Amino acid sequence: MTLALDAAAQDLLFREARTANTFTPEPVTDEQLQAIYDLVKYAPTAFNQQPLRVVLVRSAEARERLLPHMAEGNRPKTATAPAVAILAADNEFHEELPTQFPAFPQAKDVLFAERPVREKSAALNAALQAGYFIIGVRAAGLAAGPMTGFDAAGINKEFFPDGAHTVLAVVNIGKPGENAWYPRSPRLSYDEVVTTL
Amino acid sequence: MTLALDAAAQDLLFREARTANTFTPEPVTDEQLQAIYDLVKYAPTAFNQQPLRVVLVRSAEARERLLPHMAEGNRPKTATAPAVAILAADNEFHEELPTQFPAFPQAKDVLFAERPVREKSAALNAALQAGYFIIGVRAAGLAAGPMTGFDAAGINKEFFPDGAHTVLAVVNIGKPGENAWYPRSPRLSYDEVVTTL
Repeated sequence: MTLALDAAAQDLLFREARTANTFTPEPVTDEQLQAIYDLVKYAPTAFNQQPLRVVLVRSAEARERLLPHMAEGNRPKTATAPAVAILAADNEFHEELPTQFPAFPQAKDVLFAERPVREKSAALNAALQAGYFIIGVRAAGLAAGPMTGFDAAGINKEFFPDGAHTVLAVVNIGKPGENAWYPRSPRLSYDEVVTTL
Repeated sequence: MTLALDAAAQDLLFREARTANTFTPEPVTDEQLQAIYDLVKYAPTAFNQQPLRVVLVRSAEARERLLPHMAEGNRPKTATAPAVAILAADNEFHEELPTQFPAFPQAKDVLFAERPVREKSAALNAALQAGYFIIGVRAAGLAAGPMTGFDAAGINKEFFPDGAHTVLAVVNIGKPGENAWYPRSPRLSYDEVVTTL
């Protein structure tokens, strides 16, 4: 046993978990979404910044606003997934640092006064948080279908008109339906990815 | 039980896991690092791209090359962690797409012919993979100490002289030592992060 994580959890989160492309109508509850967030919120970021923002598309009206911005091939799954999460980076995350990172409350002004610096930091750390979120969806026994095939400028304008946010991914969430999986693609080997010095 | 993941796994990966700032001398084995990769490699990315590259800093010589590029406050922990992983994005990841994403082998040329497009995609997807990697370190029963406090240009030049890679984070890995933890900082509430439409 090289890993401390039990085999069932390894399967649930990584080995047997797959990106779903169809979904059953079984609802995803608000309680599940809250439990996902309350689990993954603890995972680490730089300076404890928390730039990830989640827009849950639940109503028919919100879905109608989202669908035209999705790539055509992604529309059917986004139209039928019980819940759809728009994951975005809040480029004004620094406003929260005085309370969220009390060890260095000056970080807001000393490190993040400039918008391009914030955008870069938010892009990295919100993407880390997006990775944690996807694992959290699986931890709830649900399938995630993360997508980047959409018109980002269109989603930013439609859902984040304040100009302060950058969409990163859209994630379909639900129980896998019929023919939910494509064949699993290959993965690079350890030696192709890891160099030991 | 709203989550399917068992409570021990929730604690191991999220609730009780903490960013370690000191480490015991107990070695991290190559077998552990391989097991971490062989678990997290399955987590999803866009078009199954796998831009994450890991340079494991193990030897005294490699550590001497890394330390001057770390922020001063990070040097003692990077000097003493049993293993240190430099996580970087490979901006030439598209070369692998014909074998790694056989469903659309043209992606390499149709979508990723231009370097700025690749850099943006690699930054997002390698960051997702970095998030998975940090969870994987915890799955091995080890503590991770991810850091972004370093001279990125210096690390890129020293460890990736081909100009094709962008460092994202440096992660100390090992068993937590004495006084390993700072107090846990607050987290944003569900309602501060999630909007339901």
